[in-house]
Amino acid sequence: MYEGIVQDLIDELGRLPGIGPKSAQRIAFHVLDAEPADVRRLADVLTEVKDKVRFCVVCGNVAEAEKCRICADPRRIETVICVVEESKDVVAIERTREFRGRYHVLGGAISPIEGIGPDELRIKDLMTRLADGTVGEVIIATDPNLEGEATATYLTRLLKPLGLRVTRLASGLPVGGDLEYADEVTLGRAFEGRRSVDD
Amino acid sequence: MYEGIVQDLIDELGRLPGIGPKSAQRIAFHVLDAEPADVRRLADVLTEVKDKVRFCVVCGNVAEAEKCRICADPRRIETVICVVEESKDVVAIERTREFRGRYHVLGGAISPIEGIGPDELRIKDLMTRLADGTVGEVIIATDPNLEGEATATYLTRLLKPLGLRVTRLASGLPVGGDLEYADEVTLGRAFEGRRSVDD
Repeated sequence: MYEGIVQDLIDELGRLPGIGPKSAQRIAFHVLDAEPADVRRLADVLTEVKDKVRFCVVCGNVAEAEKCRICADPRRIETVICVVEESKDVVAIERTREFRGRYHVLGGAISPIEGIGPDELRIKDLMTRLADGTVGEVIIATDPNLEGEATATYLTRLLKPLGLRVTRLASGLPVGGDLEYADEVTLGRAFEGRRSVDD
Repeated sequence: MYEGIVQDLIDELGRLPGIGPKSAQRIAFHVLDAEPADVRRLADVLTEVKDKVRFCVVCGNVAEAEKCRICADPRRIETVICVVEESKDVVAIERTREFRGRYHVLGGAISPIEGIGPDELRIKDLMTRLADGTVGEVIIATDPNLEGEATATYLTRLLKPLGLRVTRLASGLPVGGDLEYADEVTLGRAFEGRRSVDD
């Protein structure tokens, strides 16, 4: 409907996740009105990110060098590895400032529906990392959904025989939430995982 | 939180309209996983659109040449001008295939709150276009909201003394809508604009 290049821009924007045709049109018109320097900066960073960003050879996290910032940091504890699905999860956990160990990014979760089996995930690399016996605990921090649970179960079976401590993030009531609004699965987990108050 | 360039991309994406921090992160990770050629195409079209797109010297619509496709098309009727707020509105009206005349894009609507008065809109250019007497009807198709109505009232007062036919798009119930869900203003307008069935 638009003059060639404007329609091209709307089409390209519409290919991005979560951007429908209306949003694409809105963003395209924003771009038309924006300062050329601002648009140039977005275009440059898009190109640059593809040239520069790679995945850490150790843990699979996004990195600008061979190793990501966490794997390159000698202050991080080497004996604990937290296994997550995506780099986004690393960022979420880093935000808590609770964890001082290393990560391992699987690159997804087991999902038969999407055709993702263990071989599509970075599980072999994890086994290689664990081979020298430095690591004493693996914390499984996959998402608390069907795929994440399946992945956690698979990993637990794989890791337990190695004589490692294998832990899973606690499920329960979200802090600040209302008990009455918790779904029954979450509430069930909260009961299951209840702890003595003198713990 | 992310390695430099990834955070830069999230920041730049977050500046686009309707893209919050979560969406920006989601799009950034999509970009990281995407084919380099696809990302390059988006980057290129962003740059190209700023280089190529200008505004039609006649009507103010987006254009790739001096005149937009509509103003350059000799088959379009010269005696009717439809006045709209934005180029997006031109596209919406073109989609109906009901209108064969020309357009005039104001570049917004009168809005004292946002500091947009008649001088900020392409109203002088419209008066110049009307000066030679070719145009017999001006259809005011500003948005049916406060700013659009104010702009329509202003334009009507300006155009009526020129002896032109000045019309406004009909307000009423949207086709396919439910009467019971119509807001009272729309329903009021629908009564006001009611027509004899043998019309």
